[in-house]
Amino acid sequence: MREVQLARLLDGVPQADNFQLAEVARPEPGPGQLLIRTIYLSLDPYLRGAISGRHMGHDPVKLGQVIPGRIVGQVALSKDDRFQAGDYVFTDASWAEWVVQPAAAVEKLDPAFPLSAYLGALGMPGLTAYAGVTELLRPLPGDTLLVSAATGAVGSAVGQLARIAGCRVVGIAGGPEKCAIATGSYGFDACIDYKADGWKAALAAALPGGANHYFDNVGGDMLATALTQLALYGKVALCGLISQYNETVPPPGPNLGIVVAKRAQLFGLVVYDYDRLKSQQVARMGRWLNDGRLKHTEDRAEGLGQAGAHFHKLMAGHNIGKPIVVVGPEKA
Amino acid sequence: MREVQLARLLDGVPQADNFQLAEVARPEPGPGQLLIRTIYLSLDPYLRGAISGRHMGHDPVKLGQVIPGRIVGQVALSKDDRFQAGDYVFTDASWAEWVVQPAAAVEKLDPAFPLSAYLGALGMPGLTAYAGVTELLRPLPGDTLLVSAATGAVGSAVGQLARIAGCRVVGIAGGPEKCAIATGSYGFDACIDYKADGWKAALAAALPGGANHYFDNVGGDMLATALTQLALYGKVALCGLISQYNETVPPPGPNLGIVVAKRAQLFGLVVYDYDRLKSQQVARMGRWLNDGRLKHTEDRAEGLGQAGAHFHKLMAGHNIGKPIVVVGPEKA
Repeated sequence: MREVQLARLLDGVPQADNFQLAEVARPEPGPGQLLIRTIYLSLDPYLRGAISGRHMGHDPVKLGQVIPGRIVGQVALSKDDRFQAGDYVFTDASWAEWVVQPAAAVEKLDPAFPLSAYLGALGMPGLTAYAGVTELLRPLPGDTLLVSAATGAVGSAVGQLARIAGCRVVGIAGGPEKCAIATGSYGFDACIDYKADGWKAALAAALPGGANHYFDNVGGDMLATALTQLALYGKVALCGLISQYNETVPPPGPNLGIVVAKRAQLFGLVVYDYDRLKSQQVARMGRWLNDGRLKHTEDRAEGLGQAGAHFHKLMAGHNIGKPIVVVGPEKA
Repeated sequence: MREVQLARLLDGVPQADNFQLAEVARPEPGPGQLLIRTIYLSLDPYLRGAISGRHMGHDPVKLGQVIPGRIVGQVALSKDDRFQAGDYVFTDASWAEWVVQPAAAVEKLDPAFPLSAYLGALGMPGLTAYAGVTELLRPLPGDTLLVSAATGAVGSAVGQLARIAGCRVVGIAGGPEKCAIATGSYGFDACIDYKADGWKAALAAALPGGANHYFDNVGGDMLATALTQLALYGKVALCGLISQYNETVPPPGPNLGIVVAKRAQLFGLVVYDYDRLKSQQVARMGRWLNDGRLKHTEDRAEGLGQAGAHFHKLMAGHNIGKPIVVVGPEKA
């Protein structure tokens, strides 16, 4: 079988040639383990830190080692009573065509919802959005919510959850194509292209009463700018800092005088704290996906050999929608 | 009578010669107004911004204009039914021996508590501490609370309130004399001298399990350092940024990646939001002052002519305790 290994240590934005496809032996499941055929591989910004050993629970990936990653797959062989061949599952495994996992590390999926969505709206990015909106920001109808990386897997879910909650939603995204998706597919009330001249003035104009809520996926200058647009008593979920994931030394942040002046509240959000919400996230967001209230956009690449190039695309900000590598068909 | 006027525009740390004493006519109260004899003048860091027009509700003070400031005084002549001559009062007025104020802008004081404390523990600094501790941080017994500017009017009250709430309290202050007061008079469990070599290591050693709460009066490098010492889920009250009050351009702040990683919560605190707590603050903190559980240290200067030099001392960080100018005797 094939897997993707680290070919060259990461330095700055990951490139396709940081990764190599290798032929390795297909693993064999032992007692209590499952053999899983990979269908979809998830690409997410946290992987940048995970590969370099900067993400919680991850040692640095060494040269020649397989890249870690989350997958949706199908059980081919089960040595655990709770699973049987044919079950669709999610697990945090690796960039490989087949994986063996202990049953305790595998979640069974309800195929009533789109399988690939379990890597996006129904998976970790969706849970991040769901927790940030329902537990931290708690917007009320009529509030205005601002979200950066508005067409990303997290940002698009944040904005749509806020819209479903009755908020006015303003996004920030890079380029007119992404902004058109935010206001078109996702139903945002406005989307500001941060690559356009005068975007900060456009942002202010789109937020005449300020933002009651800001969900930050970016950090850096974007966060500093958003803080200037907060309404009094505004709340901020700090979730990701993709602007610095490719950096070696964290840059300084915004002066926090504005947090005092605005009486703002800032909340650090780590999705791993919110496992208890998974069942309600999947039940609600799955229903909204199926009835069309929630849109899920994917940026698919075909074949495991495309994983490295597709990860580059994500970390360079060129993806639109949730990046997914299609490794195999849903039905074997 | 005499008042203190702006003699030279502020630039950086205020100096004594930014201010001048001037002879002016004593004002006359009209209907609904009070003539008040100033007893104590309060000096507070917010005045730095107020004089320069950077503090909410304050236009810049022009050359030759009187400096604004909060005072405790005694009513000499009342043209309002709610007050009578002899009443002790608090009002936000100016650096002057006599002031005239509308009755609605004046608060009557309970002389059961020390009068000068109404500018400190029973006044705005005490309310800042009380609101930060009871409304935002809400520490529980056994928690560890860290506070900067630990012997300042706000910091000393924060630490003592946390100690009364059953917390372990660690302060940060400049110099061994201030630290001795924090651990001696105020009963802090530890105080770290940020002017000493190796203070960051000493701070880490004083917080073996991290700080569950941090009350920031300083901003800048102090805030960045304190964030590194937060426990997981730590809460931070952002109250003052004295490190930058003398600056023209706000410096950058800490990288907020650590807020995400620690799942921290940051709260901007502006005392003007908490007027509703005043009566419980005065009742509780007044009782604790009188029974000795709460200590109030003052740095007194005698005579209105010392106000400018005393303000310099505060803004240069050389005061120990709440800076007060004694303008006249408590009993006329």
